[in-house]
Amino acid sequence: MFNKSINFKDKFDKITSYWDPKIIGELNGQHVKIAKIKGDFIWHSHEKEDELFYVVKGCLKIEFRDKTEVINQGEIIIVPKGVEHKPVADEEVHIMMFEPIGTLNTGAVVNELTKKDLEVI
Amino acid sequence: MFNKSINFKDKFDKITSYWDPKIIGELNGQHVKIAKIKGDFIWHSHEKEDELFYVVKGCLKIEFRDKTEVINQGEIIIVPKGVEHKPVADEEVHIMMFEPIGTLNTGAVVNELTKKDLEVI
Repeated sequence: MFNKSINFKDKFDKITSYWDPKIIGELNGQHVKIAKIKGDFIWHSHEKEDELFYVVKGCLKIEFRDKTEVINQGEIIIVPKGVEHKPVADEEVHIMMFEPIGTLNTGAVVNELTKKDLEVI
Repeated sequence: MFNKSINFKDKFDKITSYWDPKIIGELNGQHVKIAKIKGDFIWHSHEKEDELFYVVKGCLKIEFRDKTEVINQGEIIIVPKGVEHKPVADEEVHIMMFEPIGTLNTGAVVNELTKKDLEVI
């Protein structure tokens, strides 16, 4: 995953399920992850990790307790640790995330949606 | 810079000089930076910092001592600490970088190209 160009389309083509992040890169204790998402995720927050979302394809909405942000294709958003948020994708959205190694997709909530031991693709 | 969508085009419109990175985001001790580049940069490496480049627009080349990698629009590359590299942009390229706070653009080389105290835009 180092010193080589990484093509998003090639990586996304390997993903066959929603809300199932995969690792495509690692640097400075952070993971670069991608996921295909569709529908509503759960409300959650991350105790210790800030989280960056970049919308590679589609239109992402993130609900906060006081507002909803729309993140269009080619835009990013940074959600600080401790802030409750709920990602929503009305149609399929392709996202890239930067976050510390070990960050759980469901944050402090651990349930059947939680993904651990993510695959490197 | 938090909890709000960040549009690359809006940010790049504020940049008027080449090889002059600006900060657009911060998370987990890392900075998200953008720059317009054109021409050849210098050979350098970063002693302690891995560096991610994402090509927002154009085509970036990174020369390594043993090869040259082409990073097309929409692709990323991760250059590990200690690895000598030389970014080259035959035409204007817009890049996003993700690296630890304090990373110098010229790495261990400090000269007239070195940019410190980067502006947040």
